Amino acid sequence: MGRLYVGVDLGGTNIVSGVLDEDGNVVSRDKRPTMLQLGRDRSILRLIDSIRESISKAGVKVEELSGIGIGSPGTLDPFAGVIIAPENLPDWRNVPIVEIIQKEFDVPTVLDNDANVVAVGEQWKGAGKGFDSFLCVTLGTGVGGGAICNGKLLTGFNGNAAEIGHLTVDYKGPRCNCGNYGCMELYASATAIVRRAKEKIRSENPDTVLSEFDGFTAEDIHKAAKGGDRFAVEMFEETGFFLGVGLVSAINVLNVEVIAITGGMAKAGDLIFEPVRETILERGLPGVKDKVKVIPVELGEDAALMGAAKISIDRLSAK
Amino acid sequence: MGRLYVGVDLGGTNIVSGVLDEDGNVVSRDKRPTMLQLGRDRSILRLIDSIRESISKAGVKVEELSGIGIGSPGTLDPFAGVIIAPENLPDWRNVPIVEIIQKEFDVPTVLDNDANVVAVGEQWKGAGKGFDSFLCVTLGTGVGGGAICNGKLLTGFNGNAAEIGHLTVDYKGPRCNCGNYGCMELYASATAIVRRAKEKIRSENPDTVLSEFDGFTAEDIHKAAKGGDRFAVEMFEETGFFLGVGLVSAINVLNVEVIAITGGMAKAGDLIFEPVRETILERGLPGVKDKVKVIPVELGEDAALMGAAKISIDRLSAK
Repeated sequence: MGRLYVGVDLGGTNIVSGVLDEDGNVVSRDKRPTMLQLGRDRSILRLIDSIRESISKAGVKVEELSGIGIGSPGTLDPFAGVIIAPENLPDWRNVPIVEIIQKEFDVPTVLDNDANVVAVGEQWKGAGKGFDSFLCVTLGTGVGGGAICNGKLLTGFNGNAAEIGHLTVDYKGPRCNCGNYGCMELYASATAIVRRAKEKIRSENPDTVLSEFDGFTAEDIHKAAKGGDRFAVEMFEETGFFLGVGLVSAINVLNVEVIAITGGMAKAGDLIFEPVRETILERGLPGVKDKVKVIPVELGEDAALMGAAKISIDRLSAK
Repeated sequence: MGRLYVGVDLGGTNIVSGVLDEDGNVVSRDKRPTMLQLGRDRSILRLIDSIRESISKAGVKVEELSGIGIGSPGTLDPFAGVIIAPENLPDWRNVPIVEIIQKEFDVPTVLDNDANVVAVGEQWKGAGKGFDSFLCVTLGTGVGGGAICNGKLLTGFNGNAAEIGHLTVDYKGPRCNCGNYGCMELYASATAIVRRAKEKIRSENPDTVLSEFDGFTAEDIHKAAKGGDRFAVEMFEETGFFLGVGLVSAINVLNVEVIAITGGMAKAGDLIFEPVRETILERGLPGVKDKVKVIPVELGEDAALMGAAKISIDRLSAK
């Protein structure tokens, strides 16, 4: 079976862990609620229990593991192995998770943020397979990213690379939580599409089923668009346009060949993919724009698990 | 002396070549005008003559060379070794320069664009030394860039990475030659500072010595600013602001630790560096913005020569 690794996908809702071999085959899998409401220490114990369960299900011993990789919401320090101030794990401030897990299992452990491990997973076994220049975009309540450059995860000097949601789209735009102004995330996230739709319904009184709802979500806009609601379709076109504007900047810096999109908003499929592709064709560099492929991810829920295992393979073999 | 390499800096005005050892010591150097007016074939012969002269000055034989590296204005294809359509070498369309030079000298030859070889040179022996995440910005009539990520030159999938001049600053801005709208280059280049100054002089009639000139240049604005002309100082502040806005986007994608600036506009020193630094501190990501250093380059004219030699060392040893 070769070397064995554990991948962990730590999220605000669920913890998913699994044992993988070095070819990316998932030998075992455990999924359980994170239960943040029980407090940080209890949810750390649940993470440890999940890893233990995965190992047990795989029918192997802890000593047979070569590494553990953890994908976690940021901010975090991948080099120090510390979760710093994650929005989705409000209670987890300055948690030295790598030290905790290493002490528990006595297995070398590594950490990176969720968008990065998804990118690594998709490049290993999914939408980015075979491409050395690859960007994976997480399109949800915010816009995140993970980039593969020269065949390797781009970490940057302190683990904050590929923050593509914070590419400037309009320097005179509104201030973002990150401190910058007119960030792409403010125009292209699920939060943004809902905000813009509500503003337009208030100010322009368009003919749309959405005006009957009070607190509609991005998913409701998606459903309305699928049902042929012209206003809802336009909202996705606008959102895809802004995502495309940001991605043109990302392409002009990273010169990636493939961009795979994941996250809640990606479920809208071509409603959002098509305006993204059109914007890249309109605004991209000659010799580049017609070669870039914008596609959905392929691995679904397993991407983070597989990517987390892969970063432990890559980093531990580099040592 | 170890292995020997030739570096070539091919420009629209001059050709500079030199023999370097693998530690970056320049053993010999030749500089001569490119003489584009004589036509493409004659200037290619001048390039060959320059290399031959460098080898002769170094007192070595062609057979002793391990590689030749060429830095050239783009657009070009570094993988095919072809200069495609360089603005600064108008006559050089689709020139298979790597094939030509390899045939002439029977030495393995590689090619990359001028901004990239300068970045490689500065990271090897200059402002980026010791930093694995480094961006070198060429600030002249346009804005170019070369990025070092994970310690290696970022080429992207087809050699068009680090085109930071074409990061969007304002998606509603004017159209750029590249096809995009509101590119940073339209606000932060030497061309842009002159255009904005002229527009303001026309529309706002400010108190400035520049209003006495007819066809002033970016250098004239620099001189006026050094002489205490408030309007000229403001022009640099604005230009530095826009450069800073673009660089914040570049930092958010590349997470570089050091940004070195070269090119004609960089000669204005802190007049432009200070507003760039202030903008990064105002708009950058927490945990990143206060760690990024913006500094001048160190190698001057030799950067391209050394970087060109270094890309031949790196690529030929990777084969």
